[in-house]
Amino acid sequence: MNRASQFIHNFLTHRNVTIDLINKIEQGNYDFKPTETSMTAEQLVTHMLTSFYKFAAVVKAGDVSPLMAPIEDTETNLVKLADKYTSETISLLESLTEEDFDRVIDLTRVFGANLPGAHVLQMAYEHEIHHKGNLFVYVRAMGHTELPLFVKRG
Amino acid sequence: MNRASQFIHNFLTHRNVTIDLINKIEQGNYDFKPTETSMTAEQLVTHMLTSFYKFAAVVKAGDVSPLMAPIEDTETNLVKLADKYTSETISLLESLTEEDFDRVIDLTRVFGANLPGAHVLQMAYEHEIHHKGNLFVYVRAMGHTELPLFVKRG
Repeated sequence: MNRASQFIHNFLTHRNVTIDLINKIEQGNYDFKPTETSMTAEQLVTHMLTSFYKFAAVVKAGDVSPLMAPIEDTETNLVKLADKYTSETISLLESLTEEDFDRVIDLTRVFGANLPGAHVLQMAYEHEIHHKGNLFVYVRAMGHTELPLFVKRG
Repeated sequence: MNRASQFIHNFLTHRNVTIDLINKIEQGNYDFKPTETSMTAEQLVTHMLTSFYKFAAVVKAGDVSPLMAPIEDTETNLVKLADKYTSETISLLESLTEEDFDRVIDLTRVFGANLPGAHVLQMAYEHEIHHKGNLFVYVRAMGHTELPLFVKRG
């Protein structure tokens, strides 16, 4: 397995759990937030999906511009949005070469550092796990008690 | 930097954030849980601290026995508990050799697979990020709005 395939495999052990959780969020709960200052469920899910996509696009482009580009999406169904962004993220990841993983990208404007592509992808990966950890609490607060494990290996 | 030092460095980028969050939990909120079926704050924090320690102990021992051993701890202050377990976890990690990282451990009883030490440590790492993601929602629900970033690189 090359680095891209290995990374996609690891990504999906978490993204598939994210999708399981999204499938439990009814449209009536899109505006739910567990505390007054939290993101809504819809904002959190959209943030997760678009962030991973943008991080992958940064690694592909070799510069920070995709992170700055506004996301304009008219899809209002979170299950469909997850499906779309997961497919597009996988396509981007599949296109990554060894050179893309090793290339150092100037991210001083956003993270104050120059980072290799592999490091940016690792940040995206941990960002997904972190916010999925948030999302578990949201979905439990919506009344769901049959929840998946936090990672789905297989 | 050898593998143990590199892993300890990465571990602390998250554990130090966990500790920041623990410092925000007042004793009066130890029993707080965001939903009826959630762990309490105390249970969640204790689970995080003891799990990482046990995973590290499994890698050091080369077998599953530390995961089965009951944790008996009389420390009721979560800040002190975090301090104690973080120190002990670092000591264990510092003692790991290259062979410990590569040794395959029989974990069929708990995870249905034989896994190399490095893989077990990666699980511990992701487990910490996941539950820290839970803990962020808890601490926000306790009224804290000045929260750290999910990872503290430095």
